[in-house]
Amino acid sequence: MSESPRPTYVVGVDFGTLSGRALVVRVSDGAELGTATHEYAHAVVTDRLPGGGGPLPPEWALQVPEDYREVLRHAVPAAVAAAGIDPAGVVGIATDFTACTMVPTLADGTPLCEVPGLEDRPHAYVKLWRHHAAQPQADRINRLAEERGEAWLPRYGGLISSEWEFAKGLQVFEEDREVYDRMEHWVEAADWIVWQLSGQYVRNACSAGYKGIYQDGAYPSAAFLSALAPGFEGFVPDKLEHPIGQLGDRAGGLTAEAAAWTGLPEGIAVAVGNVDAHVSAPAAQATGTGQMVAIMGTSTCHVMSADVLREVPGMCGVVDGGIVAGSWGYEAGQSGVGDIFGWFVRTGVPAAYAEAAAAAGESVHEHLTRLASAQEVGEHGLVALDWHSGNRSVLVDHELSGLVVGLTLATRPEDVYRALLEATAFGTRVIVETFRTSGVPVHELIVAGGLARNHLLMQVYADVTRLPLSVLDSEQGPALGSAIHAAVAAGAYADVPSAAKSMGRVRRDVFVPDEARAQRYDALFAEYVALHDHFGRSAPVMRRLKAGRRAAVAARLARESGGER
Amino acid sequence: MSESPRPTYVVGVDFGTLSGRALVVRVSDGAELGTATHEYAHAVVTDRLPGGGGPLPPEWALQVPEDYREVLRHAVPAAVAAAGIDPAGVVGIATDFTACTMVPTLADGTPLCEVPGLEDRPHAYVKLWRHHAAQPQADRINRLAEERGEAWLPRYGGLISSEWEFAKGLQVFEEDREVYDRMEHWVEAADWIVWQLSGQYVRNACSAGYKGIYQDGAYPSAAFLSALAPGFEGFVPDKLEHPIGQLGDRAGGLTAEAAAWTGLPEGIAVAVGNVDAHVSAPAAQATGTGQMVAIMGTSTCHVMSADVLREVPGMCGVVDGGIVAGSWGYEAGQSGVGDIFGWFVRTGVPAAYAEAAAAAGESVHEHLTRLASAQEVGEHGLVALDWHSGNRSVLVDHELSGLVVGLTLATRPEDVYRALLEATAFGTRVIVETFRTSGVPVHELIVAGGLARNHLLMQVYADVTRLPLSVLDSEQGPALGSAIHAAVAAGAYADVPSAAKSMGRVRRDVFVPDEARAQRYDALFAEYVALHDHFGRSAPVMRRLKAGRRAAVAARLARESGGER
Repeated sequence: MSESPRPTYVVGVDFGTLSGRALVVRVSDGAELGTATHEYAHAVVTDRLPGGGGPLPPEWALQVPEDYREVLRHAVPAAVAAAGIDPAGVVGIATDFTACTMVPTLADGTPLCEVPGLEDRPHAYVKLWRHHAAQPQADRINRLAEERGEAWLPRYGGLISSEWEFAKGLQVFEEDREVYDRMEHWVEAADWIVWQLSGQYVRNACSAGYKGIYQDGAYPSAAFLSALAPGFEGFVPDKLEHPIGQLGDRAGGLTAEAAAWTGLPEGIAVAVGNVDAHVSAPAAQATGTGQMVAIMGTSTCHVMSADVLREVPGMCGVVDGGIVAGSWGYEAGQSGVGDIFGWFVRTGVPAAYAEAAAAAGESVHEHLTRLASAQEVGEHGLVALDWHSGNRSVLVDHELSGLVVGLTLATRPEDVYRALLEATAFGTRVIVETFRTSGVPVHELIVAGGLARNHLLMQVYADVTRLPLSVLDSEQGPALGSAIHAAVAAGAYADVPSAAKSMGRVRRDVFVPDEARAQRYDALFAEYVALHDHFGRSAPVMRRLKAGRRAAVAARLARESGGER
Repeated sequence: MSESPRPTYVVGVDFGTLSGRALVVRVSDGAELGTATHEYAHAVVTDRLPGGGGPLPPEWALQVPEDYREVLRHAVPAAVAAAGIDPAGVVGIATDFTACTMVPTLADGTPLCEVPGLEDRPHAYVKLWRHHAAQPQADRINRLAEERGEAWLPRYGGLISSEWEFAKGLQVFEEDREVYDRMEHWVEAADWIVWQLSGQYVRNACSAGYKGIYQDGAYPSAAFLSALAPGFEGFVPDKLEHPIGQLGDRAGGLTAEAAAWTGLPEGIAVAVGNVDAHVSAPAAQATGTGQMVAIMGTSTCHVMSADVLREVPGMCGVVDGGIVAGSWGYEAGQSGVGDIFGWFVRTGVPAAYAEAAAAAGESVHEHLTRLASAQEVGEHGLVALDWHSGNRSVLVDHELSGLVVGLTLATRPEDVYRALLEATAFGTRVIVETFRTSGVPVHELIVAGGLARNHLLMQVYADVTRLPLSVLDSEQGPALGSAIHAAVAAGAYADVPSAAKSMGRVRRDVFVPDEARAQRYDALFAEYVALHDHFGRSAPVMRRLKAGRRAAVAARLARESGGER
């Protein structure tokens, strides 16, 4: 540690889906001194472009890059003010971003939507991670890659997402060739914001690997891209390829312009960009082999580093230096977790429960949790599948759906609620066991995100997985993780793991498995696995139900518009 | 038809679970002229005997026979008064009863609970149909019958119920030998009430067959009963065996005492007893082959007559003259129907729906039905299994439970509600198809009971089964059915079918299948059948979940009482 006698500080900025949050952190010990958020003025653009025009098609989700600059102008100075520190003591800044969120730019980084004449072109805007209109392109990429036996496909559990760089890029190529031709770089927002701060375009190893299919020093081949769409073979050399920076590296110094925006000293270190989920691992001091971080919110993202490269079936990806430089970074996920609990509370709980919760001064979630906590394992007689938003790992199938079995006339809302909590824990155990049997064992589960506050949920996860559960001890996990990277980029620490050791915050073994409960859960987990394999692998009923639903909706709309039945 | 010039009348009395209802009907055309109900003072005895004493064990359900006599004393005169007729014009009375509801009596019909010194003996009281404490006895009967290959077992789809005469009788034999020894007749309440009216004990062919294992002129053999429990071989000759009366026969004339109770003329015809579900068939003019009557309420009972004897897998029973004398009467059932809809409305619908329903002046059922009616077939993307109360036909397994598959974050309460309605229709189609493939085809479905008021439900049944749906056109189906039997017993008609033709009330083909919807339902029904066979025949997960639930409840109770975990 090379800390100077006068205390020094770093700023981490976490760019989320609706707002950006800045956090001022002391370099010596990671103390969080001040924070501020700034909401994006345009939030998520799903209906019409800011300047008007026709409605966007379904599944589109755009953003406006100026909203990101505004975070630098407002949230950063506000956080410094809240911390009550002298900005002259700030030695570095780092950022993390949603991913895969893509900005089409000119050679100098100007977003195309800011180029006069292109303001009314939807494809000139930022495509947010949850822009899902490139599914047809993703389907074609996957079919072709499987046919050709592309070596990179198993690195992604066998499936490329419609959210990622190639699917979204191909959509631009096919739907607005003029915008595509004007585009000189296809930039991860995680790297674009660093470019704004430092004047340097550096592609970060994390999103290049997980979202850009950059494996073993190469992208998908020109032959593959040409077979995908004639003319698309120039995508990599013309739009994508760019020097890679490792996580924690210095991308450049803060420009005079960005210093003016932020009120921070010109020339301080700006770190290479990073992704919100992955940056949480060092915040939780989870940089070693076998330490799996679960960032649990509406969905769950699992990240873990390991010394070995293995192909884990159904994982989201494995990337060299994807979480910590020098290790293989693994990612997996569950597409619905808190979302499912929220849906149930919103749509499946009667008035009497809401009234009882209010009378007890609890939220409905807290009320159901308290009622469910009194039960023995298995007492509700239910098993659920947690696929209300599909299954990201290990089945990688968004046509799957949720299921509850064991319902009787005695089944109560708290029974179903507990079964849903347990189902997500079983889903995590499937992932942990798949990693283990693939040669990448998991020794510890570290939970980040808001759901860590539900103690029943945490204890269920410990009992179901038989893993000790640690908890990231910060409300601002991603921003803290960015601050750690800023400290490393500033040279305050030799590398991210040693910075994480001093600045990360974790409460270890907060929940430990109870062997009696764990044994009872083994029986329920066996039922979950049987249902998982039956509905996820053998019997495509869920897929048929979704197809039937789409056909029925189309039939109804046709009937309503045509006036005939 | 032998109607006299002066109009004549009959009285039908329907003894339900909580009350008895009398209905005055004109013999010539079945016109319903007046009705009255009388609630049982003791309702269902599940906690303590009327005179006090210790609490009853779980699963017990008793009644007090004097409550039945009170119906004769109050409801019958009130119905005659409401009808505004001269009681001298009444030519017959008939009754129907819940089954299997059993009265232990002395030789003269005095219930044992009315014998001085036995008032405090639980086994001296009436065992209501839903007394389920004889399940261990039923299990032993079934195991032994299967081992010995008893010829009567397939007549009941392979399983005898704990509700029936032998299981309940064996429980008395094993748990209170003194009461068993004092008992001179083990009488169906359906026959006991006729005995009260006419002074004659006649066993009706319906309950003797369906509940008393009376087949081809014989009961289970002494060898079987002795193997079941040494000493029990006397049960048939000593307690059960008695002359059988056919449905619609005259059991005797109204006694002076019963004439005084009811205000009806002494000596008028009293018909042989009957069961509430079965008596509804003639009320709906459904006395012919292939006319299946579904009595739909909290559960559904299906009854149908046919010329042929076939063994239908999983039916409740087939009995010679069990519905109409001279035909084979078939019975099947669904253990949960309206109960499931009620459970969902009670436990699974949020406050906003209750408020919207109230604002629209609808019940929550009506509100959900209206919302669900706007959907195309398959639009909700769900399939459910309707086994929340187990499955009576064709799987005959009360350890099964309910299931919903296809849930997403977009699933709304009206979606699940509609899926539950459809699941019960699929359950009916399984029964109809099982009858058909067993050589007992169903040509028409006639619905009786309160659920016929839900037009969406009825249309779904027509579309799913591809059968025209007729509706019993009376609010008092069972009492009207009894009145028809009274008219036959009085000699006003030659037999029940001809009386039904004049007096029954049915609206034919009220709901007819729509071929487009029927085809879409075929696809969903195929999913239902696949789930039905997987969970009902192949994968005993539901059975394990129920066993696990019982073990968990026991563990929690032990923990709570023992003060240890």
